[in-house]
Amino acid sequence: MAPWRSLLARAIHKNRSLTYSRYFQLATVRADGRPANRTVVFRGFLGDKDQLKIITDSRSEKANQIQHQAWGEACWYFPKTREQFRLVGQLNLIGAAHPNAGLKDARQTTWQDLSDAARLQFAWPHPGNARTDDQEAFSPPPPDPQHPLPNFCLLLLTVVQVDHLELRGEPQNRSLYYQDSSNDWIQQGVNP
Amino acid sequence: MAPWRSLLARAIHKNRSLTYSRYFQLATVRADGRPANRTVVFRGFLGDKDQLKIITDSRSEKANQIQHQAWGEACWYFPKTREQFRLVGQLNLIGAAHPNAGLKDARQTTWQDLSDAARLQFAWPHPGNARTDDQEAFSPPPPDPQHPLPNFCLLLLTVVQVDHLELRGEPQNRSLYYQDSSNDWIQQGVNP
Repeated sequence: MAPWRSLLARAIHKNRSLTYSRYFQLATVRADGRPANRTVVFRGFLGDKDQLKIITDSRSEKANQIQHQAWGEACWYFPKTREQFRLVGQLNLIGAAHPNAGLKDARQTTWQDLSDAARLQFAWPHPGNARTDDQEAFSPPPPDPQHPLPNFCLLLLTVVQVDHLELRGEPQNRSLYYQDSSNDWIQQGVNP
Repeated sequence: MAPWRSLLARAIHKNRSLTYSRYFQLATVRADGRPANRTVVFRGFLGDKDQLKIITDSRSEKANQIQHQAWGEACWYFPKTREQFRLVGQLNLIGAAHPNAGLKDARQTTWQDLSDAARLQFAWPHPGNARTDDQEAFSPPPPDPQHPLPNFCLLLLTVVQVDHLELRGEPQNRSLYYQDSSNDWIQQGVNP
């Protein structure tokens, strides 16, 4: 397992009393070359792989942005332990028509694991469009917990580089993690 | 004053008991077209303008990235009030040689307002380089509070669009703010 995985797991554990410590910010690039940035919810790792699970709606802007530029950078700050992980990787959108059976299964499992409230949002009107006046459009029948709605996507961030900064310490500690040509992870201490 | 300014000021005020509610994530684009993302500290607004003040080191990667792509997006999540501001704007790096006298003054004032510890970091070894073994390099003489070190930069984000999401509410509330052709701010409610 990648050496940063245990550090990240430790940070998640130590900050678990704060609900929002499971939120991080995901940067992507728009079709016009400008950056975009939004808060997303961490949905766990995919098995023991170096992949972070996120969910998104195929109607959202980020789903469209990823078609143009698959690279993303997650920035995850943990308030209690005062540390930051910057995770560079490629984004992979797993929709209803994805050809890989294993990834389609992962999409299905992720849907099943969601709360009713989280699933319901995928039945809401088109995100980002002018506000729908009809209040009932936001109270649709609950979607089937066994069958993902077609616009539900699992989004995977396959991490290739990590920049870990610990604000505690005199001076602060900062380490880079990246893979060598044999795909082994290298750790290098750098100046904060 | 832009209508989102008062909402943002209210969020800052209501979350003031959390030190880290003054941190936000700033996305930029690297020279190779991939996104970058890191946590920065909000240093206030520049006067009554729609500009957010950040500080950075001219030796940092983001200073270099801004030369290639001046657009940035800040993502600012407030845990107590459960709301997010996404602020799209242009980034302007104000270094020692900046031609505008007013902005150079703002750089000087920002330096003076920093804590001793914050100023000291600008006298540390080159950020991102292999870790300097010499521990004394991280204990330099305190810089002069009246005269910014040459690598100290004020970084301004001039906001042109805001996406405000309030998680509280059934359903959530989301508003876009942007400027019309007369530079007047328009508010539009959109689906979350």
